[in-house]
Amino acid sequence: MGVLKLHGHPYSGATLRVLSVLHEKGLEFEFVPIDLATGEHKKEHFLSLNPFGQIPAFEDGEIRMFESRAITQYLAHAYADRGTELLFKETKKMAEMSVWAEVEAQKFDPPASKVAFELIFKPMIGGGAADEATVAEQQAALSKVLDVYEARLAGSSYLSGDSFGLADAHHQPLVHYLLGTTAKAAFDSRPYVSRWAADILSRPAWVNALAQQSNAP
Amino acid sequence: MGVLKLHGHPYSGATLRVLSVLHEKGLEFEFVPIDLATGEHKKEHFLSLNPFGQIPAFEDGEIRMFESRAITQYLAHAYADRGTELLFKETKKMAEMSVWAEVEAQKFDPPASKVAFELIFKPMIGGGAADEATVAEQQAALSKVLDVYEARLAGSSYLSGDSFGLADAHHQPLVHYLLGTTAKAAFDSRPYVSRWAADILSRPAWVNALAQQSNAP
Ligand SMILES: N[C@@H](CCC(=O)N[C@@H](CS)C(=O)NCC(=O)O)C(=O)O
Ligand SMILES: N[C@@H](CCC(=O)N[C@@H](CS)C(=O)NCC(=O)O)C(=O)O
Repeated sequence: MGVLKLHGHPYSGATLRVLSVLHEKGLEFEFVPIDLATGEHKKEHFLSLNPFGQIPAFEDGEIRMFESRAITQYLAHAYADRGTELLFKETKKMAEMSVWAEVEAQKFDPPASKVAFELIFKPMIGGGAADEATVAEQQAALSKVLDVYEARLAGSSYLSGDSFGLADAHHQPLVHYLLGTTAKAAFDSRPYVSRWAADILSRPAWVNALAQQSNAP
Repeated sequence: MGVLKLHGHPYSGATLRVLSVLHEKGLEFEFVPIDLATGEHKKEHFLSLNPFGQIPAFEDGEIRMFESRAITQYLAHAYADRGTELLFKETKKMAEMSVWAEVEAQKFDPPASKVAFELIFKPMIGGGAADEATVAEQQAALSKVLDVYEARLAGSSYLSGDSFGLADAHHQPLVHYLLGTTAKAAFDSRPYVSRWAADILSRPAWVNALAQQSNAP
């Protein structure tokens, strides 16, 4: 199709989500760094790409998108024949994957991103100490989600199904960040969850996505 | 495919979301009422349909699903040739719809459902008075989202694009509930948003979905 451009920041989880899928698909793209520190994402030229003023934003020729999960779905569909197959053709398998992709967005992401914000991003941006009550509350919510994941992964190699798919890829950024915090214990204590976490984070596409951080200021 | 069964409660927004799409598609289905008051959704037989213990859950023959938006996507794909076309075939149009479907889930639903909980569901379940600070904070967040919607809808009849689609349908339950609260002012003060709200709530499929409430205890 057109020239692919990803506008974002390599420490942003939502940007990393798209980077991973671009690499899974083996697509060439231009990475356009957005300077969050100077508020570039709240300025006119960026707001024309995403009226909510958040990264990432994406272009494929004349197609312009935002929201990381909309972009990855687009890539998985529009480039179905390239790289890793991230969607399933069989209706029943695809229905199952849709469920677990929604679970990521609705159940996993809210507590996981709040824990990551308190323990990683808040100190990174000079926002002061973590709010311990928030961390405790969100870690408890996350543990309940991981209990359901443990049961699912006891019967299925991936959340998506019997092979790696979009629902798994969507988890990579926050699983990566959380394993660097005290929330790691919640993963380690669940054998199927920790096997799955190690598996999805060892994928070359994910390793490549993270490598974008070496070029960041 | 198989016999369709929707397990839920007709006052639940997530249940109504699926009901609306079932009617848009003109599909026959069995509605299985779940008794939230007795905690039926936390019991073994329901947990086998949704391990998170929430409604709705759905069956299409041997396919079992939960998460309302996964179910509606499944229905829109699997029954593409029935009733209203809720997805677009053209890649660019579909990419745009995916963005706005994600916006509903990521930007609109969190504040909208918190306002609806405080002002409608909390009193309904005997949970006491609304927390005014939460209402004010979430209404402010919702207003910012509606500013973006107003700009989008000034250039496009629907959030989905130039015709009604899944991204619009997903909004129906919370738009309906919010119009019965003080949050109505935030819709009324935005002409394109209020025209759109009236349009999506006047669809016969939505009116049929709501009619399920007349059969409820
Ligand atoms: N739901 C959005 C979330 C985007 C998001 O939260 N972006 C963050 C970085 S990970 C951002 O732009 N933060 C700066 C801000 O909100 O001002 C997505 O998945 O793309
Ligand atoms: N993200 C879920 C939300 C489901 C949900 O919140 N269901 C509510 C009713 S609208 C529920 O089951 N509440 C009872 C409970 O959580 O115990 C979906 O879209 O299906």
